[in-house]
Amino acid sequence: MGKCLEYRGQQLKVSELLPASFNNIDIALFSAGSVRSLEFAPIAAENGAVVIDNSSAYRMDNDIPLVIPEINPQAVKDYEKRNIIANPNCTTTVMLMGLKPVHDISKIKRVIATSFQAVSGAGAQAIEELRNQTEAIINSKEIKVEVFPHQIAYNLIPHIDSFLDSGYTKEEMKLHYETRKILGDNEIQITATTVRVPVFRSHCVCVNVETENKITVSQAKETFNNFAGLEVVDNPQKSLYPMPVESSGKDNCLIGRIREDYSINNGISFWISGDQLRKGAALNAIQIAELLIKKYV
Amino acid sequence: MGKCLEYRGQQLKVSELLPASFNNIDIALFSAGSVRSLEFAPIAAENGAVVIDNSSAYRMDNDIPLVIPEINPQAVKDYEKRNIIANPNCTTTVMLMGLKPVHDISKIKRVIATSFQAVSGAGAQAIEELRNQTEAIINSKEIKVEVFPHQIAYNLIPHIDSFLDSGYTKEEMKLHYETRKILGDNEIQITATTVRVPVFRSHCVCVNVETENKITVSQAKETFNNFAGLEVVDNPQKSLYPMPVESSGKDNCLIGRIREDYSINNGISFWISGDQLRKGAALNAIQIAELLIKKYV
Repeated sequence: MGKCLEYRGQQLKVSELLPASFNNIDIALFSAGSVRSLEFAPIAAENGAVVIDNSSAYRMDNDIPLVIPEINPQAVKDYEKRNIIANPNCTTTVMLMGLKPVHDISKIKRVIATSFQAVSGAGAQAIEELRNQTEAIINSKEIKVEVFPHQIAYNLIPHIDSFLDSGYTKEEMKLHYETRKILGDNEIQITATTVRVPVFRSHCVCVNVETENKITVSQAKETFNNFAGLEVVDNPQKSLYPMPVESSGKDNCLIGRIREDYSINNGISFWISGDQLRKGAALNAIQIAELLIKKYV
Repeated sequence: MGKCLEYRGQQLKVSELLPASFNNIDIALFSAGSVRSLEFAPIAAENGAVVIDNSSAYRMDNDIPLVIPEINPQAVKDYEKRNIIANPNCTTTVMLMGLKPVHDISKIKRVIATSFQAVSGAGAQAIEELRNQTEAIINSKEIKVEVFPHQIAYNLIPHIDSFLDSGYTKEEMKLHYETRKILGDNEIQITATTVRVPVFRSHCVCVNVETENKITVSQAKETFNNFAGLEVVDNPQKSLYPMPVESSGKDNCLIGRIREDYSINNGISFWISGDQLRKGAALNAIQIAELLIKKYV
């Protein structure tokens, strides 16, 4: 509070959040975690602002739409019930950018997803931690472990968010529940493993899908190509496939390694990479705001 | 040739490989790639040595056993046909250390595997490349890309070995074919995606298995616990699960994140991490040699 933050060359003063802060605000973008959202989103909503909330606080609330504009824009209109719209989990968003076009061709029966998640998903300190640990290891110094439960540099941590009694993490279950809500299909079966990898930015998801009817690779590619927000990068012979260094800083999610899964009758696999700070968070929130501005506000 | 290499404090002189090199050799360990193996393994075999070959040259040859001593030791005896025994692919070995105990409880129907493979799988220069690229990035210098097709530091490359027309890599198909051969079951369906990650050592595989009958988590854990070469590390509440930094330098493969897959009737998922230079290569070769010495030579 009182501190100044630089934003696009301007110095902006940080003010205390008060109910009055929301007077004359049309759209309030929340991105300070569930605790803050649970406290202040209803206040903002009551004061007439439409809240677009990036936390997980309201995502599974029946009265609150969970929206990816390219996928379920029509859901936005339900914001009127509570004046709150939820922004989905970053990994869910990246994965669904690839799953929705598949679902449009043939109903999805089952998804097996394995995520490779960048440290920036855990915040600015996590980025520093990866950088500092790498530097320490390169210089044969001792590493500090503070943000993640273990060393992340040159390591893999199959643990994102907290563990449930079932042995799954909350992150893994978000992929399950949020997918069903966004695609509006509670019959889809989803099982996921989410893994933190020593990458600064952009999540990747390795996705195996079983559909009701057969989908050919060329059918899938064509549909992916025509899907807004998606870019097909799939020329293996030229070593072209999606990678975090390529998707970082891009609005589009990159999809590739598209191939038939011969282990079942109607299966397809792909690998998708998306900037989780953009499409997985900020961009998607802004796109929701644009939907509101164009159609509903 | 003529060069000296240090091995356990001794200076060993490198000699030219000649047919006569194999005189009076009982067991010859080959680990210099397929081209060398194809040329010299038959010569060694003809001269009376039993070849244990770490390359992929002979793995799928019907007359040559492909052996993981904890899994199919009985196959070793077939070495007599050609005097050659093949050492499986490193990722296949790590994955199978977890799959075999499952298969022992209930026949495996289908496997979906996603690998996270360390750079050391690509040799000593690959280790240097990861180290050099990281150092360059940390110091804001330009990186050099020589061993891998793209930057590997802070990146993910979903491309190991060369691509086939099907869109799969050879590495991915090795998981399929070698698994069937080692488990002696051509009905098992396997689909894999193999990914290079910026980790120095130890491969991890995220494995989803469908079995004929239901397997409970406690059943699986008990069987894993009793399986030689496998160590259960699975206490999520204490943030204990397998990680490359933990499995590196160990003979045992570490298995964890064991959980029922609710997306199908009889499904189980796990995460396994193994030192691909040990169990995935050298250790397994030595274990095969031990089998030969104890029983057959």
